[in-house]
Amino acid sequence: MAENALQRIFFGWEELKDLESLLQEKAYSGVVCLVDENTHDHCLPELLQRLEGLGDIEIIEIEAGEDSKSPEVLIQIWHTLSELNLDRHALVVNLGGGVVSDLGGFVASTYLRGVDFINFPTSLLAMVDASIGGKTGINLQDVKNRVGVFTEPERVYIMPDFLRTLPHRELLSGYAEMLKHGLIADADYWDILKDFEIATNADWSQLIMTSVKIKAQIVSSDFRESGLRKALNFGHTIGHAIESASQTLSEPLLHGEAVVLGMMVESYLSNLHLGMEIQKVDDIITSLQTKYPKLRIQHSNEELMRFIKMDKKNNSGSLNFSLLENVGMVKTDVSVPEEKILIALDFIRERL
Amino acid sequence: MAENALQRIFFGWEELKDLESLLQEKAYSGVVCLVDENTHDHCLPELLQRLEGLGDIEIIEIEAGEDSKSPEVLIQIWHTLSELNLDRHALVVNLGGGVVSDLGGFVASTYLRGVDFINFPTSLLAMVDASIGGKTGINLQDVKNRVGVFTEPERVYIMPDFLRTLPHRELLSGYAEMLKHGLIADADYWDILKDFEIATNADWSQLIMTSVKIKAQIVSSDFRESGLRKALNFGHTIGHAIESASQTLSEPLLHGEAVVLGMMVESYLSNLHLGMEIQKVDDIITSLQTKYPKLRIQHSNEELMRFIKMDKKNNSGSLNFSLLENVGMVKTDVSVPEEKILIALDFIRERL
Repeated sequence: MAENALQRIFFGWEELKDLESLLQEKAYSGVVCLVDENTHDHCLPELLQRLEGLGDIEIIEIEAGEDSKSPEVLIQIWHTLSELNLDRHALVVNLGGGVVSDLGGFVASTYLRGVDFINFPTSLLAMVDASIGGKTGINLQDVKNRVGVFTEPERVYIMPDFLRTLPHRELLSGYAEMLKHGLIADADYWDILKDFEIATNADWSQLIMTSVKIKAQIVSSDFRESGLRKALNFGHTIGHAIESASQTLSEPLLHGEAVVLGMMVESYLSNLHLGMEIQKVDDIITSLQTKYPKLRIQHSNEELMRFIKMDKKNNSGSLNFSLLENVGMVKTDVSVPEEKILIALDFIRERL
Repeated sequence: MAENALQRIFFGWEELKDLESLLQEKAYSGVVCLVDENTHDHCLPELLQRLEGLGDIEIIEIEAGEDSKSPEVLIQIWHTLSELNLDRHALVVNLGGGVVSDLGGFVASTYLRGVDFINFPTSLLAMVDASIGGKTGINLQDVKNRVGVFTEPERVYIMPDFLRTLPHRELLSGYAEMLKHGLIADADYWDILKDFEIATNADWSQLIMTSVKIKAQIVSSDFRESGLRKALNFGHTIGHAIESASQTLSEPLLHGEAVVLGMMVESYLSNLHLGMEIQKVDDIITSLQTKYPKLRIQHSNEELMRFIKMDKKNNSGSLNFSLLENVGMVKTDVSVPEEKILIALDFIRERL
């Protein structure tokens, strides 16, 4: 992918005229909109009102939540598209959070070997992360994103207005990825984020744009994650394991919450294994703790190691991480011995 | 896809040294071989004997036949790869006909968002068609290839030796696609094929190479089938409908058999709609009849039209065909009115 992903990303209702042009230019033979029950109620009416050019569209509603990223739901939607007799010139519109865009992107990329799709992310997490970069997929049993493809959406339209109906906990979850963007790529941005007051009615536009730029730049340089893109995995090797393990809890962690814990552990690993200054690591952990005071590591090292070893980013045996050399500087493909991982997990578990 | 697909295709056991190099270079973390019960018995032993460099490999066996190209089998294999804990650096080896390479290619292209796969086509049809060009996928209910992706195999190794155990009817089925290659791209090749005696012990190498070159050239110029590649659909709009309809018969048609009937109907359509000389059309139909004397159209126009309209190559409403202007010359995106299709179907049904 030579072009920068940023060229396909648009912000705010005023830029929706780009979609009007796209619809005119492509003259899609049919339009399907994938929603969950929340975006069906809170976001779809406004979108339909603002977009008369969409014409007749079919609405497919899935249940909100990670469980919908399953082979069973995937097959159901394939059958629905088939029964609607959609052809290759159809368009899939994903209106929702990461679950909707991951699943809907995978459906669109595989139905008739690929039809166009566009993303309207409605959660903060999806706006700054999931909807950008072309990763699509579903989970298999308890392993996240075990199956999928890399396919760039035709467009991404980010409407910060949609955040007005987002629960505070979801807002915090998305914020975790923004904090990560600061930590891996932009120390000034990290400083701003540390002090920002997270609220539904805050002005999110500038921060979202900064995060989107960081992510789009990294993704454009390495679409299939053979190198640079791995920078985005900071906090995620441990984070994914914690997230997977938490699925059996009565109240599973949100993605961003698990990533916060992952960033704490991996920041400490950055000191332990890469020699990052301990004061800076301490500042990161303290800042994260202040913003997310209730988070705890609730699983044993044995349980977590089982998931860490399952992580797809591992290259046959060795345990690979993206760690920090400094705030705003990340190093990818750092092979870390298991004993250090255990020490870091224990350190954070006890500190919280 | 800029490079010619031909660069990744190798012929005969002596060229298997390329695979030895590939295995050395890539150092795959695990190898899975997908077979059906026939290729397990007839082809796998020879391959394993000749390829000691493969090391430990896991064998996954599916049932022979189109029914295995289903969502259920797809999910089963995803789970198997996941349980084997294969990582991104694994290799999938498809040893079989089109069902194995279509399914195995789709599995490999989606597991962990894509691992390498190579094809060892074992049927004539797969050697000259299915294994080349990167079309992968499965069927949904009675609609063929409703779901899939375009992904180029890392390599294709064609071993004409494998044809020794192929049933004669399967040989004839593959031959249909070779005849198509002559008709759409090379009049001299068509003349040779018309007179060739189809037998297991014939020398297939040269003919296979010619067909592979024609297909690879077309595919390389148009990987995602937006233009030129549609040339390969000659005989297939009608052929797919006949094939789909025949699935409910006690003895369904093979793909190539349905394509032969499709080529007869579409040759006649080429006269009816494009004005191709009737003597040449007559020669095509007679030649095909001589080689395939038992084939009949066994479904009504109503039944067939239902499937034709479902065909994914249709662009919202209009019925698109790739038809012949002459032997060796094809025209794509020919929109044909329904009444002419019905006339052509009747004409061939009565002539057989």
